[in-house]
Amino acid sequence: MLGVDVGSVDQATLIAYGAWIHRLKMYPYFDTAHYLLVTCEIRDEMSSAAGMFSRKHPLSCWLSTMLMCFADAFLASFLLGEPLITPFKRHDDILLATLIWYLVFYAPFDAVYKLTKITPVKVVLSILKEFKRAHKVAQGVSHAAKLYPHSYLVQILVGTAKGAGTGVVRPIEQFVRGVWMPTHNELLRPSLYTKVCLIASTLLVLEANSTFLNAPHDLVYLGMLGFLLYFKLAYLLFHVSEPFAPFENLFCAVAMGGIWDALSRAIAASRERKLANKDTVPLPSDKKEQ
Amino acid sequence: MLGVDVGSVDQATLIAYGAWIHRLKMYPYFDTAHYLLVTCEIRDEMSSAAGMFSRKHPLSCWLSTMLMCFADAFLASFLLGEPLITPFKRHDDILLATLIWYLVFYAPFDAVYKLTKITPVKVVLSILKEFKRAHKVAQGVSHAAKLYPHSYLVQILVGTAKGAGTGVVRPIEQFVRGVWMPTHNELLRPSLYTKVCLIASTLLVLEANSTFLNAPHDLVYLGMLGFLLYFKLAYLLFHVSEPFAPFENLFCAVAMGGIWDALSRAIAASRERKLANKDTVPLPSDKKEQ
Amino acid sequence: MLGVDVGSVDQATLIAYGAWIHRLKMYPYFDTAHYLLVTCEIRDEMSSAAGMFSRKHPLSCWLSTMLMCFADAFLASFLLGEPLITPFKRHDDILLATLIWYLVFYAPFDAVYKLTKITPVKVVLSILKEFKRAHKVAQGVSHAAKLYPHSYLVQILVGTAKGAGTGVVRPIEQFVRGVWMPTHNELLRPSLYTKVCLIASTLLVLEANSTFLNAPHDLVYLGMLGFLLYFKLAYLLFHVSEPFAPFENLFCAVAMGGIWDALSRAIAASRERKLANKDTVPLPSDKKEQ
Repeated sequence: MLGVDVGSVDQATLIAYGAWIHRLKMYPYFDTAHYLLVTCEIRDEMSSAAGMFSRKHPLSCWLSTMLMCFADAFLASFLLGEPLITPFKRHDDILLATLIWYLVFYAPFDAVYKLTKITPVKVVLSILKEFKRAHKVAQGVSHAAKLYPHSYLVQILVGTAKGAGTGVVRPIEQFVRGVWMPTHNELLRPSLYTKVCLIASTLLVLEANSTFLNAPHDLVYLGMLGFLLYFKLAYLLFHVSEPFAPFENLFCAVAMGGIWDALSRAIAASRERKLANKDTVPLPSDKKEQ
Repeated sequence: MLGVDVGSVDQATLIAYGAWIHRLKMYPYFDTAHYLLVTCEIRDEMSSAAGMFSRKHPLSCWLSTMLMCFADAFLASFLLGEPLITPFKRHDDILLATLIWYLVFYAPFDAVYKLTKITPVKVVLSILKEFKRAHKVAQGVSHAAKLYPHSYLVQILVGTAKGAGTGVVRPIEQFVRGVWMPTHNELLRPSLYTKVCLIASTLLVLEANSTFLNAPHDLVYLGMLGFLLYFKLAYLLFHVSEPFAPFENLFCAVAMGGIWDALSRAIAASRERKLANKDTVPLPSDKKEQ
Repeated sequence: MLGVDVGSVDQATLIAYGAWIHRLKMYPYFDTAHYLLVTCEIRDEMSSAAGMFSRKHPLSCWLSTMLMCFADAFLASFLLGEPLITPFKRHDDILLATLIWYLVFYAPFDAVYKLTKITPVKVVLSILKEFKRAHKVAQGVSHAAKLYPHSYLVQILVGTAKGAGTGVVRPIEQFVRGVWMPTHNELLRPSLYTKVCLIASTLLVLEANSTFLNAPHDLVYLGMLGFLLYFKLAYLLFHVSEPFAPFENLFCAVAMGGIWDALSRAIAASRERKLANKDTVPLPSDKKEQ
C-alpha cells in the first residue's frame, strides 16, 4: 500500500515538474544561455582571426551570429514555407542576441568570452541551453503536427530541424563570413545533437500518435529533457562524443550492406583460391611432362 | 466515306487512349521506374566511390537520393512559395523511394543496380519514366495555371521545372554529398530533357490559352507523351544526344549575334587589309626616293 | 509676413513635387534605365569573356540578367515567404528586360553597350535609376509595414533588400554563370548603395512610426530621393566612393572595440616594459656578484 502510494505521488510530482518545466518562459534566461553558447561557438570557429574579423566586418559578423542564434527558426520556416524573416519580428529577441554578440566580440578585455570558457559556467549555460532545446523540439513537433497531422515524417524532421538546425545552417553562416567548405557539412557527418534531437522528436511523435507510448505528455517532455541533458553532460564532463557508435556499427553491419559485402568478399576470395589451386595443381604434371 | 470514317474513329480512339493514359495512376509502377533510374544516376555519378560512400555516409546518401527523386516537387514548391517539405508529406512515396534507394545501394551482390543496366530493362524503365514525366509536366502547367491564369511564362517555367527539375537541383544534391562543382550547372549547358520539357510545356500552355492549337486536351497530352518518348528512345537506342543542335546553331547565327559578329569581323578584316595596302603601297615610292 | 508666405508656398510646392514624383509610373522609362545599367554591370563583370559567353550560353546569360534585374523582388519575396516566381508574372516587365538584355549583349557593333558608357548618357540613366530605387525602397517599407506593423527591423531590412538587393543576389547570379567566389560577398563589404538604402529605409520607418519626424510623407520621400541622388552623383562625378568612412571609423573606434583594444595593447606594452625593466635592473647586481 505504502509503495503504491509513494509511486503514485512520485509520478504526480514528476508530471507536475514536467508541466512546470514545459511552461517555463524561455526569455530571457534560457535564451541568453543559448545565444551565448552559439556566439562563442562562432568565435571559436574563427579561432585567431576572430579579433581582426569582428573589427573589420562587423555587419557580416553580426549577421552570421543572428543566422546561427535563430538557425532553428530559419530552417523550420524554410522547410514549412513560412516567411524567413519571422525571427526578426520580435525586437526583444534580436536586441538580446545583439547585446550578447556585442559582449562576446567587443567586451573590454574579452571578459564575457573568457568567462564562458570556465568549466562550471559552461556547464550551467549548457544545462540552460538544453532546456531551450527541449522546448524548441517540442514546439517544432507540435507546430508541424498542427499543419500536417498525419505526416509523422514531417513532424520528426521539423522537430529535429528546430532542435539541431545550427548544423544545417552552418554552411550559409560560413558563406556570410566569406568561408566556403563544401566537403564538411552536417549531413555528411551528423553531429551527436542531431542524432539526439532525431530520437527526441521521434519520441514525441510516437507519444502523440501511437498507443505504444501513452504516458502523460508532461512526463514524456521531462524524459526527453533528461535524455538531452544526459548526453550533454556526458559530452561535457566525460567527453563521450559518440555514444551511439556501437549501435550504428551494428546497424550498418546488419542493414547497410556490411554482411553482404563480407559475403561477396568471401566468395571472391574463395574463387581466387580455387583459381590459384588450378594454377598450382597442374604444375607437378607439367614437371612430369618435362 | 470510308477514309473519313476511319479517320474519325482513329481520332476518337486516340483521344480515348490519351484520356486513359492521362488518368493512369503513377503510384507505384511509374514512380518505381522514376525512382530507380534517378537513384542509379546518382550512383553512376559517384562511380567507384559509391560503395564506400553509401557505407560511410548513409544519411547523406539517403537525403541526396530523396532530393533527386522529388527534385521536381522541391523546385516547383520553391518557385511557387509553397512549403518545401510537401514531398515528405505522403508516407507511401517516401517509403517506396527509400526502399528503392536501399535496393540500389545495398542489395546483395548489387543485383538491382546491375539489373537496371541491362538494355531491355533500361528501355522499359525509361519508357515508364517518360509517362511519369509527361504526367508531371501536365500537372505543373495546370497547377501554375490555377495560381497565375494569365502568366504564360510562369506556367511554362513551372512545367519545365516539374519535368526537368533534377538538373537544377543537382548542385544542391552534390553539396549534400560534399561535392561542389560550380562550373558545371544545368543552366550553363541545358540538357536535352530540359529543352524537351520546355517545348512540351510550351505546347500545353499554347493549347490551353491560344486559338492556334485547339485539339482536344487528351490528344495534345498523347502527342506530348509521344514527343517525350521519341527523344528518349532516340537517345537510348541511337545515341541522338543533341537533336536540336542544327536549329540552335541556325538560331544563334541569326539572332544571337552570329551574323553581326561575322559582319564586324569582315569589316575589321577589310580595314586591316586597307591598312596593310597603305603600308605596302608607299614602299615602291620609298624605293624611288632612295 | 512675406517670408512666412514664401516659406509655406515653398513647402507646399515641394510636397506637390514629392507627391508627383511618388506617383510617377516606373514602367517603361525608369525600368528601362534600371535594366540597362544592371545588364551593363553584368557585362562589365564578365569583362573580356562577355562576347564568347553570351554566344555560347545564352540561357545562362539571360537567366542571370533576369535574376539581377529583379533581384530586389526575388530577395524580398524570399525573405517574406512569398512566391519567388512573382517577378515572372508580369509579361511587360520580362519582355522589356529581355529586350534590353538582347540589345546590350547582341546589338550590332555593340552600339547600345557603348552608348551607355558615354558619361552624359550614364548620368541620365543613373538619375532615372535612383528614382526607381527610391520607389522600390518606399514600396518595400510600406509592404513590410502592412504585413508586420510593429516590427520596425523587418521593415528596414525589407526596404534595404528592395533598394540594394543586387548585391546580396550576386553570388547566385554568378553561380548561374558558373562563377563561384565565396570570399567576395556583399555582406562582408557592404557597398555604398546598401548603406544609403539602409539609411533611407530607416528614415521612412522613423517617419511612419515615430513622433520625432513628422513631416508630410511626400516631403520625406522627396528628401530620400535627394539623398539617394546626392550620393549617386557624388560617386559618378567626383568618385566619392566611401563618404561614410569617417563616421564608420569613429563608430568602430568608440563602439567596436577600438578603444578597448588600444587600452589592452597599452596595458600589455606597459607590462612588457616592466618585465624588461626587471630583466635589466638585476643585470648590474649580477655583474657585481661576478
